Amino acid sequence: MSAEAASLSEPPLLLRSDNGGIARLTLNRPRQYNALSSDLMAELQDCLDEIAEDRAVRAVVIEGAGKGFCAGHDLKELRGRSGDRSFYQSVFKQCSKLMVSLTTLPQPVIAKVHGIATAAGCQLVATCDLAVAAESARFGTPGVNIGLFCSTPMVALSRAVPRKQAMEMLLTGDMIDAEAAVGLGLINRAVAEEALENETLALAEKVVAKSPLTLKIGKEAFYRQVEYGLVEAYAYASEVMTTNMLARDAEEGIDAFIEKRKPEWQGR
Amino acid sequence: MSAEAASLSEPPLLLRSDNGGIARLTLNRPRQYNALSSDLMAELQDCLDEIAEDRAVRAVVIEGAGKGFCAGHDLKELRGRSGDRSFYQSVFKQCSKLMVSLTTLPQPVIAKVHGIATAAGCQLVATCDLAVAAESARFGTPGVNIGLFCSTPMVALSRAVPRKQAMEMLLTGDMIDAEAAVGLGLINRAVAEEALENETLALAEKVVAKSPLTLKIGKEAFYRQVEYGLVEAYAYASEVMTTNMLARDAEEGIDAFIEKRKPEWQGR
Amino acid sequence: MSAEAASLSEPPLLLRSDNGGIARLTLNRPRQYNALSSDLMAELQDCLDEIAEDRAVRAVVIEGAGKGFCAGHDLKELRGRSGDRSFYQSVFKQCSKLMVSLTTLPQPVIAKVHGIATAAGCQLVATCDLAVAAESARFGTPGVNIGLFCSTPMVALSRAVPRKQAMEMLLTGDMIDAEAAVGLGLINRAVAEEALENETLALAEKVVAKSPLTLKIGKEAFYRQVEYGLVEAYAYASEVMTTNMLARDAEEGIDAFIEKRKPEWQGR
Repeated sequence: MSAEAASLSEPPLLLRSDNGGIARLTLNRPRQYNALSSDLMAELQDCLDEIAEDRAVRAVVIEGAGKGFCAGHDLKELRGRSGDRSFYQSVFKQCSKLMVSLTTLPQPVIAKVHGIATAAGCQLVATCDLAVAAESARFGTPGVNIGLFCSTPMVALSRAVPRKQAMEMLLTGDMIDAEAAVGLGLINRAVAEEALENETLALAEKVVAKSPLTLKIGKEAFYRQVEYGLVEAYAYASEVMTTNMLARDAEEGIDAFIEKRKPEWQGR
Repeated sequence: MSAEAASLSEPPLLLRSDNGGIARLTLNRPRQYNALSSDLMAELQDCLDEIAEDRAVRAVVIEGAGKGFCAGHDLKELRGRSGDRSFYQSVFKQCSKLMVSLTTLPQPVIAKVHGIATAAGCQLVATCDLAVAAESARFGTPGVNIGLFCSTPMVALSRAVPRKQAMEMLLTGDMIDAEAAVGLGLINRAVAEEALENETLALAEKVVAKSPLTLKIGKEAFYRQVEYGLVEAYAYASEVMTTNMLARDAEEGIDAFIEKRKPEWQGR
Repeated sequence: MSAEAASLSEPPLLLRSDNGGIARLTLNRPRQYNALSSDLMAELQDCLDEIAEDRAVRAVVIEGAGKGFCAGHDLKELRGRSGDRSFYQSVFKQCSKLMVSLTTLPQPVIAKVHGIATAAGCQLVATCDLAVAAESARFGTPGVNIGLFCSTPMVALSRAVPRKQAMEMLLTGDMIDAEAAVGLGLINRAVAEEALENETLALAEKVVAKSPLTLKIGKEAFYRQVEYGLVEAYAYASEVMTTNMLARDAEEGIDAFIEKRKPEWQGR
């Protein structure tokens, strides 16, 4: 059997299925708890690059196949390249680029979390715009337990949760449950396991009903202004509001609101 | 009837009443849920500019007349100027200047919230130094529902509440209740509707009992240092402490504390 | 009796006892609620400088002798130098340097809090990487009550807790209890008074079991990246991960994890 045939017979690392404006991406290495090997990250990056240009997609859901959401980097792959600085640099840059791409994607991204979300898996949850989890889900940054501090995960974690609580997760490596994750702001809500699919879809559908142009404008502005000082943030956001106000979708939206009818968006 | 006479017979857009060092500002467009028309914003700006220079005022309370606190911008006014970029720019700049003025005002500002606080109304709550709300109050940034993302409101919102929770409010347009707003840090407390007036006044009176100079020094320092890196923030705050320590009110305050008597402040 | 003999007979301002990799520092001015006089701050600074170089120390616990944790600056000392700008400057610089040193210390620092933690004492809690408190502990920044706004404490406070809640503590001077402090993120947990010693030790021991090199790398990276923009933070953290991955302790940690055995750390 040729390499190509072998490759064809292997299950894909990432599944994508689109329905009703929602692109669902499934990390598909269930036996490895969907560990983010370089190959899986490359596929996810390609997929996000495609989605960024795909106007039919209005929301993205990321989930994991099998028993958990994502266990972080592929430790066997990392360990197999002992001493290879340039490999490690490329892996962590690749992962960081992926996380930034989720933030710059025009469409909102929702993490749908079950089982565990650890290390770069927890980072993925922290990075998505929104996150819904099963009550039984657990979150952690346990890199410290294996001598590899979760330094890139903490970039996302420390921007989502209060400082002392982020520090406790990072310094102890302890897991927190979904209820605690809601309390810290790491996820938006914890739901019964059997409700996870429907609750996530309901949230995605709520987003899909909005003007895609408006979501794009707003999401981009959110992550930019949050890094500015107050006066600079207002100067920037005022310009964004002006641009948004001049767009067809805002005129339509306001008219529909005043006329008490459903708006018809133009798309972006 | 002349335009002037008509204007004179119209109720004022903004009411101000001062009592015991507390300036109470009431947004007074109850039939429009106190929507922030340019005229109302101009009056509020003038009023804040006056208060900044008025040493008799030691705390400010902002509330809304009628059924709610504030429903944000005046959509009919905005929609009536379709395509008028310079008008929109001036409106959003005016609003941003107003919000920054609340932050730079020497006196603490308390939002007293009942009914709804939406879009720029929610921004107003997020911007005030403190906020007390009736348990029945509701908060939201629903601009996304009318195609106009709450981009300027999110400047204040994203500095008050955790990132994912701010994003959920912004992307879904869903309202949250007062209890949730306390949990997120958007307001300081939710009280029974019949206790709202007394609880807000009690908080304002607590502030009025402090040295106005000390409040001015501290409030200004708070919003400046929070934008600095840690080392720069400490260098700045150490100078602020030194200046404060050299002021008559600090000497009086410490003496009164040591002598177990009530301090007598000099004012600012 | 000579001055030296008198000095020798006075109890030390700061106690240090090391055990099992944990350095325990006890603020020892119990009759002054461990107020941070310049002398006590100088001793604490020297002690931290020593610990930074002491590879046998893998975690630090700070606590207070007597009835409370720490009541902030020594007001009698401050008041005794009325009008002495250069003295005040040196005191607040000294205090700020001390706080920054806790943050740059390679080892994690845990505050063990009982009784009151006020003003610079509250700042000390906010500054430590982690904090455990007795349920009966109380926290506040009451400087405003004596005309001296807690401007340096707020540097730490406003980086640990949400903005409006920090403002309420600062503007009102009101105390909050340990349960509220957990809710705001100021401390990690509140425990029964009789469990405080054991819970704090258990947390310290958890940290001591990690690779000291990994903790050093991670703690330093945490406080640096949190001040960067997202893209810059990822660029920096990716380099940190690479360096960490090339260290012996990460290789050992990953091997131990894969081989399901306990890792043996090299130290830093």
